[in-house]
Order: sequence, then C-alpha cells, then structure tokens
Amino acid sequence: MTQGSHAIDIRRRESGATSGVEDRVAVEEPLEIRLGYATPDGRAHRAISITMRTPGNDRELAAGFLFTESIIGRADDILSIDHCGPAATAGGYRNVIRVELAAHVDVDLGRLQRHFYTTSSCGVCGKTSLDALHARGLNVFAADPGRFGEAVLLSVPGRLRSGQATFAQTGGLHAAAAFDASGKLTIVMEDVGRHNAVDKLVGHLLLNRLLPAGDSGLMVSGRASFELVQKALVAGFPLLAAVSAPSSLAVSLAREFNMTLVGFLRDDTFNVYAGAGRLGL
Amino acid sequence: MTQGSHAIDIRRRESGATSGVEDRVAVEEPLEIRLGYATPDGRAHRAISITMRTPGNDRELAAGFLFTESIIGRADDILSIDHCGPAATAGGYRNVIRVELAAHVDVDLGRLQRHFYTTSSCGVCGKTSLDALHARGLNVFAADPGRFGEAVLLSVPGRLRSGQATFAQTGGLHAAAAFDASGKLTIVMEDVGRHNAVDKLVGHLLLNRLLPAGDSGLMVSGRASFELVQKALVAGFPLLAAVSAPSSLAVSLAREFNMTLVGFLRDDTFNVYAGAGRLGL
Repeated sequence: MTQGSHAIDIRRRESGATSGVEDRVAVEEPLEIRLGYATPDGRAHRAISITMRTPGNDRELAAGFLFTESIIGRADDILSIDHCGPAATAGGYRNVIRVELAAHVDVDLGRLQRHFYTTSSCGVCGKTSLDALHARGLNVFAADPGRFGEAVLLSVPGRLRSGQATFAQTGGLHAAAAFDASGKLTIVMEDVGRHNAVDKLVGHLLLNRLLPAGDSGLMVSGRASFELVQKALVAGFPLLAAVSAPSSLAVSLAREFNMTLVGFLRDDTFNVYAGAGRLGL
Repeated sequence: MTQGSHAIDIRRRESGATSGVEDRVAVEEPLEIRLGYATPDGRAHRAISITMRTPGNDRELAAGFLFTESIIGRADDILSIDHCGPAATAGGYRNVIRVELAAHVDVDLGRLQRHFYTTSSCGVCGKTSLDALHARGLNVFAADPGRFGEAVLLSVPGRLRSGQATFAQTGGLHAAAAFDASGKLTIVMEDVGRHNAVDKLVGHLLLNRLLPAGDSGLMVSGRASFELVQKALVAGFPLLAAVSAPSSLAVSLAREFNMTLVGFLRDDTFNVYAGAGRLGL
C-alpha cells in the first residue's frame, strides 16, 4: 500500500555522518467536500469543507465528517458519494468529493460555521458545546460494569501498531481503531490529521450500518481532545483510549456522559479519567 | 504557573494495582476572536473564529492567528487587543477576545473562509495554496550556507524540553520555540493545539516588532504539516525543525521556498527534507 505515502530523496545525518537516502513521507493533500441537497427550488450544490488529509478512504472521511458534525444523522441520508473532477496533482490524487443527500435531509449549514463564525454572545465556553450535544438527543451512557477487561485494553496499543502500515513507513500518521470486548481490532484508519482518522473510522461504521458503536471501544494514537471525545460520543463509543494525555475539557465531556476515558495507555500502565466502572476498577 | 493546567482526581493502574491520585491535565477552552474593523458606514464587529486553546498568551494567539491567516500584515494594523465579557467558566477563564483594527486595514473575511467554504472549481490541490503564498509577495529564501550549525540544531530539543513547564506537568501540550544561531531559545509557547502554539509565538514576535524572523529557526514538538510550514513561511523563518515527521505537502512547500525543513530531530540524528545548504550539509 503506497497510496498513503510516497518516496522522496533526503539527507540523513547521524552521529556526524551524512547519507543520501530514500525516505517515505505521509501524503498530505486537501480534500474538498461538496454537498448536494434539496432546496425548495430544486437542488443546490455547495463546497462546504476543505480538510488536509491523507488520500484513501475519502468516502468514509466525507461520510464521517458529515455525521460527526451533525449534518447528517444516519446512512440513509446519503444517496451517493463520488469523487468528481480530474486528478488534481502529479500524484494522481482526486481531491474533490461530492456527497448527494436524500431529499428528506434538512441541511443546516450553520452547524458547519461554528468552527469559524459564530453569533454567540460575549461569553463563549465549552458548556455551549456540551449543551448542544444534549440538545441533539445524545444520552448519558448506561453503567456497564466490567464491559472491557484490563488485559484486553492493554493489548490494544500493540495490535494498533501492528495494523498501522503507513505509520511504520513514515512515522507521520495518526491512527484510530475500533476494538471489541475481546480486543480484536474491527477497523483501523490512518491519516495525517487525527480528527480525519476518527472521521474515516466513523464513516466506515456509518456506511456499513454499524452505528451506534455501543459494544466497541475507540483507540487513538495521540492525545484526547474535546473534539475527539465529542466525535466518539456522537458515534456511540462508550470508551475512548488514547496513547497520550487528555485535555481538561475532554475529561469534563467524558464525565458528563459517563464515557470511559483512558489516557497514557502504554505497556502495563494507564490512567482512567472517567467511567472507571466500565473497566471494573 | 498553573494557568495552563489544572488538578483532577483520577485512577492510575500500574502492574495490576489501582491507586487514586491527583493528576494535572492541560487546560483546553474555546477562544472566540472578534474583529472590529472600519467599513464605509462606520465600524463593524464580528466574531470570526473559535479555536480550542490553552488559556494564556491569548493576545499573542489572536495577533498571530490574524497574521498567519493574512487578515493583517503588520503590527500597526492592530489598535488594541482585549478580552471582553465576564469570566465564562468555573476556572475563571475569559474566552472572548476582541481585536480592533486600524482604519487603513482592508478586511478580507473571504480569506478566513478557505478552511470551510470555498468557491474553487472542481480541481482543488495544494498548488492553489502555494500560488496564494506567491501572490502575497512571499519570496524564496536566499541561500545562506551554514547559517545554522549542527551542534546548535542538536541542542534545541533538550532546551525546549527544559522550557516546557506545563508539558512536564501534563504531557498534554504542544510547544513551539524560536531559537537564534547560537541555539538560545528566544521565545517558547505552549498550547493543546500545535497551530495555536505557533500562532502564539508568531503573535509575540509581531507585537514586539520582531518580524520577519529571518535570523531565527523555529522548532515544533510534533509533526510538520503543510499549515505549520505555511505559518513559518509567513513569519519569515528560514528553518523549521520538528521532533517528528513532515508530510508530503510540507516538504513540497519548503522546497518551493528554499526553507530548511528538518524532521525526526532526536539525540544526534535528524533528517533534512529541504534546504540542507543552510546547515552546511
């Protein structure tokens, strides 16, 4: 698999010696997501997002992005997802994808604007986002004592490293993996952007009608931010485990929804920031 | 310094034993940036961005964001930068900041929309962004053989770790540092978001009229993406060094502008992806 990386000539310096070597770098290209949707006058088409992503699983990325950003709510909201336009770059990557939505979908483009434009009053805080999640009808996870065993949890980082083909070549990709209660990785996605890796994973589950992901855990290679917890929550993962640290707001959100949040999952050690009961601890 | 982190009670699991401990997590809170600017009819105010950031150096973050996003071009474009509104959260963080721009600034809000909305034709590619940088008048860096010595470069990661106060507490922050040709770190900024860390650093340099940063290098704690190279380029850093891997488009952009791009800078080893002459290699 070379779609996610390509070869370049670089100079490597080691212990005072220089060598010219061929290296592989993770591919980063923009993906423009265009939306087709019904309006009172017919259908409209609009470019709604450009994200820097690693090519591959673009359909899943687009579907997952629309789902975790609450533009769509289920697989049936999508009529089709296809690349459009010619290959844009020397590498042959197709960087525009068009998602046609079903006529019943009421598109609220205002939701997309929250990242850059807002009309909120002078007192923005994370609470607003938490309220929005409640308003969307997301429920607090039920207690489920001992759902995930410790041995299973500890096995996941190693399995994830084995499954990260492009990371092994480049060291430059984030990964997201869903795992079941036996520790088996059911799906692994990689991307230069960690949000994209999660969107690809969620999009895959959505398109295969495997959401909500209630019986699975989600593992991410980096840190756990507010947005990653939010995406996991929207997809219905009761457990999010990160190789590195969570942020304050990630912890607050996980606690509010009784999601299990694990950080610094390495070797035989981890921290539990929320929902320890689900691990039987 | 505790503004960047706060204490929470967690459970730590190690070698099969559980302990309840107090941990420190990096604070993540939204910052809304509001812009005041002249219009033909007087002055307008508009919220233009919400970014998830670690509180602290908010003025620098706002200034750096506006500069690296090309909304402003120099320090004199800013009349004032002040927080507005009451403290929004239990932690007492003030999460809205207002930047008043001078009357001569011609505000092009369309530039901000590139992240989420675009009218480009069906064939987006990274080349568009590269073209935009040329259009802005950014020049290819002049050859400057041996500007940065290898020993200096190798000393920077260690100095950066020493300077990262909040990271040491939480393990949850990205860092950006400017260093001079002797290896001295002239400014270090931290944030949960790596783009924010660079924006804070660039904003500090802008507000202190230290741009362009032609004689300094920029070191970042994570990976080198297209956007980080772009920000370094806009600020005039001829060298960007990252602890981890660059992406394909980061390498392309650095090569196009003859910027030195170093990756995997660890111990006595590093890779040079572009501009090796500036290191005398």
